[in-house]
Amino acid sequence: MTSKETIRKRLEMLRALMAKEGIRLTLMKSTDPHASEYICDHFKVTEYFSGCTSDNVVLITDAVNAYLWTDGRYFISAANELMDTGITLMRMGMKGVPTVEAFLKKELQPGDVLALDGRNMDASSGAKYRAAAEKAGAEVISNFDAAEELWVGRPEKPQNPVWILPEELAGESADSRLARIRRRMEEEGAKHHIVSSLDDIAWILNIRGSDIACCPVCLAYLLIGAETADLFIQKGEVDQETAEYFRQIKVKTHEYEEVFSYLENYHFEGAVLVDSGHSSYEMMRLISEKAEVLDLPNPSLAMKARKNKTEVENSRHYYLLDSAAVTRFIYRMKNKVGHEAVTEYTAACEMDRLRSEIPGFLDLSFGTISAYNANAAMAHYQASEENAATVGNEGFLLVDSGGQYKGATTDVTRTIAVGPLSAEMKRDYTLTAAANLRLMYSRFKKGTTGSQLDLIARSPLYEYGIDYDHGTGHGIGYILNVHEGPQRIGKYTGNAKESPMEAGMITSDEPGVYRENLYGIRIESILLCVEDCETEFGEFLRFDPLTYVPLERDAIDIRYLTAEDRILLNHYHEEVRAKLSGFFTGEERKWLIEATEEI
Amino acid sequence: MTSKETIRKRLEMLRALMAKEGIRLTLMKSTDPHASEYICDHFKVTEYFSGCTSDNVVLITDAVNAYLWTDGRYFISAANELMDTGITLMRMGMKGVPTVEAFLKKELQPGDVLALDGRNMDASSGAKYRAAAEKAGAEVISNFDAAEELWVGRPEKPQNPVWILPEELAGESADSRLARIRRRMEEEGAKHHIVSSLDDIAWILNIRGSDIACCPVCLAYLLIGAETADLFIQKGEVDQETAEYFRQIKVKTHEYEEVFSYLENYHFEGAVLVDSGHSSYEMMRLISEKAEVLDLPNPSLAMKARKNKTEVENSRHYYLLDSAAVTRFIYRMKNKVGHEAVTEYTAACEMDRLRSEIPGFLDLSFGTISAYNANAAMAHYQASEENAATVGNEGFLLVDSGGQYKGATTDVTRTIAVGPLSAEMKRDYTLTAAANLRLMYSRFKKGTTGSQLDLIARSPLYEYGIDYDHGTGHGIGYILNVHEGPQRIGKYTGNAKESPMEAGMITSDEPGVYRENLYGIRIESILLCVEDCETEFGEFLRFDPLTYVPLERDAIDIRYLTAEDRILLNHYHEEVRAKLSGFFTGEERKWLIEATEEI
Repeated sequence: MTSKETIRKRLEMLRALMAKEGIRLTLMKSTDPHASEYICDHFKVTEYFSGCTSDNVVLITDAVNAYLWTDGRYFISAANELMDTGITLMRMGMKGVPTVEAFLKKELQPGDVLALDGRNMDASSGAKYRAAAEKAGAEVISNFDAAEELWVGRPEKPQNPVWILPEELAGESADSRLARIRRRMEEEGAKHHIVSSLDDIAWILNIRGSDIACCPVCLAYLLIGAETADLFIQKGEVDQETAEYFRQIKVKTHEYEEVFSYLENYHFEGAVLVDSGHSSYEMMRLISEKAEVLDLPNPSLAMKARKNKTEVENSRHYYLLDSAAVTRFIYRMKNKVGHEAVTEYTAACEMDRLRSEIPGFLDLSFGTISAYNANAAMAHYQASEENAATVGNEGFLLVDSGGQYKGATTDVTRTIAVGPLSAEMKRDYTLTAAANLRLMYSRFKKGTTGSQLDLIARSPLYEYGIDYDHGTGHGIGYILNVHEGPQRIGKYTGNAKESPMEAGMITSDEPGVYRENLYGIRIESILLCVEDCETEFGEFLRFDPLTYVPLERDAIDIRYLTAEDRILLNHYHEEVRAKLSGFFTGEERKWLIEATEEI
Repeated sequence: MTSKETIRKRLEMLRALMAKEGIRLTLMKSTDPHASEYICDHFKVTEYFSGCTSDNVVLITDAVNAYLWTDGRYFISAANELMDTGITLMRMGMKGVPTVEAFLKKELQPGDVLALDGRNMDASSGAKYRAAAEKAGAEVISNFDAAEELWVGRPEKPQNPVWILPEELAGESADSRLARIRRRMEEEGAKHHIVSSLDDIAWILNIRGSDIACCPVCLAYLLIGAETADLFIQKGEVDQETAEYFRQIKVKTHEYEEVFSYLENYHFEGAVLVDSGHSSYEMMRLISEKAEVLDLPNPSLAMKARKNKTEVENSRHYYLLDSAAVTRFIYRMKNKVGHEAVTEYTAACEMDRLRSEIPGFLDLSFGTISAYNANAAMAHYQASEENAATVGNEGFLLVDSGGQYKGATTDVTRTIAVGPLSAEMKRDYTLTAAANLRLMYSRFKKGTTGSQLDLIARSPLYEYGIDYDHGTGHGIGYILNVHEGPQRIGKYTGNAKESPMEAGMITSDEPGVYRENLYGIRIESILLCVEDCETEFGEFLRFDPLTYVPLERDAIDIRYLTAEDRILLNHYHEEVRAKLSGFFTGEERKWLIEATEEI
């Protein structure tokens, strides 16, 4: 952790610069220019100036004070990190805590200047802050990059070579994808389209990178015209082979840093499709000053969510290998705990090792979560080698992990009984299993959305007054980000129009129960949406599980299962046994047979 | 039906007036000034000029042609009604049929005049049409009431005396309701509030009327200020007692027709809360020219949906009496069919008679639907004395009916087996019953919405590739409209933010299966939303059925029920028996016991 003294000094430097430039308030946000979920160190500006490592932060600094907003997941860690820095923690959503906009409206006076870095801020937040400031009569400078001037030893932007995803792995050429996007542009009346989101760019061009940990993407911007395509990418990322590939698919490359000056001088001949949900504030501002903006979701968002035949087949293959590794891990844990020292950390290492031995393994798809009993009740618990708890021989070890392979991105959670369980643990596990299975085996009509499916999963828990404070499912990329849209299985929010579930989408199914200071349970399997049937009443869909890892028979209390739930559980276990038994021999196989026995 | 010749003549008169006034197109819509679902004859302007009786109509007339838009429910009847009138039927949503807006954009030229009657048009439609016309460069006259001048023998506005709903029936005084609304106005920063929706006005002031068939409301507008309330109502509706009541609750009355001129000359001192979803286009236009408009749902919408203790208790009481009448009706039908002549019409009369004998009966809550076999597959089938089918001694008779009582508005559908059923009929009935029961007995968290609950109901049907083309549930008023908002159980549309289900709401639960030319099945019970429990995870809700009428044991094929569905069915029947057996003796009682036997 950066020392409190250092943070105070950095803020003083910032204030000196603000005074010089006549700035009343600066506002920084923990985002990157690409609206990425995970960001690389180079863009961690709020962390540099505040020391706070939370990933949802707004930092406002004036001549004397500083205020940092973050959400409930980080109240405890942020309070710790901010202690003695002079920064006030603003607990989002808590009574008496103003929103950032309300704060700006109250704090700013006519004639004041608010400075922010619009490149390093998502478009909708930038617009909200500007509106609030202008309502207060203040002026907004939206290209104020304090880090540029003040961040000593700022990490360089990563510059890792990109690689080409061959057509036999992608199932479709970049030419074809560009053509599909251009057709959509034409339909929408757009002459140009700017893509800032890194996974969209990787998908469109069939390239992969490694600029962000666990996300096989590269820093880039893409400008698509009716006949042209301009890619802004760091020179060091493009080797000769890739350069040749770009020439073949008629993609002209430019230096990453030149994107804004290039667009500034670009002559747009018609409307420009830009997705404000996946662009920076400065990008939206720049384009809307130069051309008519069609603010629509990136066409690639929906296209990449519907996996093609190749992607589906490869995913089925790798998910099975991945499932076998997780199943082997469960067997090992059950045998090790009580006999040799196991910590959350060594368990995670074992899981990662098993996964890395799978041919085609590229990387983890996120840092493995390994949490024993009470630790698993904490939403963002991450065991380190130093602080990891020892896994005792009772209760639950929750392991949430996944891999990047040359043919899939996986994600799976199992909660392993490492010894005797309490009656409450069994009840909660059983209801979680019912939730997981009911969603897995549901059938629904085309047009059904994630908030509707969410209730199918939560129903068995609701029967007992139980709920979990996270979504039920997220979309998953193909050799891409482990979280992608547009679909999402979660509670109704009404904030944006929902995307219905569609055939080809790959989505997680991960209900859970979390009992503070006691234990946490989550069961996550990944589901492929497939066509079920077409009748006089319309088209129907269902899911095919991609994940085949046993649930905990020992943790099931059948009094909490309906007869139907029991049928589903036995059916799933039958499938697990059929699909996995070829991977195992001897004692392991014997255990697998027992673990998938009918209940 | 009006003769085709007459329609042609009426359109010629309209065209002559248009020519005189320099109007290129007129647009009429089948709405009333109060955004009512059912409208009185006085406002049926599109019917007068087109002869079309559909209740979702737009009629556009130019110097030579006329075009009438309606939706799929009415394609057949409207085609019939429009034959030889020279009016072209525009089938909404069909390929190649432009929307009204697209038509206006294409048809209108710069300088053209589009005329419509903004008082007799809902605000959002009016705004859409104006935008389309203005995009084409045309001018819009929004106060063109052709009916005023041309409709010979136009029915007067109904002028039936209103009656006062005493506080012991309403459970709350009008003073208290006005005070609650004024508090909400203050919270929203509104100094005035204009209410156009008739059921809201009736609810706020604790008055009832009979200006619209089956809806106990009166034609009125209400202007609420911080201390004043102005009611615009026809003089003939207010007798001495009511006039005295209005004085007591400090409501000043004005003539109904004067509302627009009164508002035109009114001095608004601050923002005005007007609900564009429940106001006419002209009302919105007038107010927004005079004051700042806060376009928010009428505060009374959510308030009246959450029934108070008195309303709940009275509803429970009357729903039981109503259920007993429907149960008796089922018994009679089963005994009559095959022995004496029964038609759909005589069956409906019998149902209505049984209901009218209940003390406290005021009116039907809608025209009873009685449909035998194939007729029940038609969405808007209504048997008349002349065209009614004879009820044979096989298959299903569907009866959907309800009453207005001095303590409830009811609505219930049962599909009665009047003889042997085919295997398909039994399968479809069984799945419909499962759908109905799963929703009835579901438990869910506060915040759950109707589109989420909808999937709970449809799931058992989706398993077999079956769906129904209507919503699953609508809100129901208290001695008020049988359809009311804000809640709705139906598919996700994303058109507007959904209102979550809340304790105190009364909502229908009416899944169905419709097989064209064969039969139609619908089972509708009414549910009261109640608090279930509060735990560390939040507050949970469930439903209490208000309707206790047996389902058809003979129509159940248990192969299509899960074990859990079967438990629910038996539980419901146990409750039906317990609640109803006191109402029956002798043979009827014997039958009730059999009809509710465990399966």
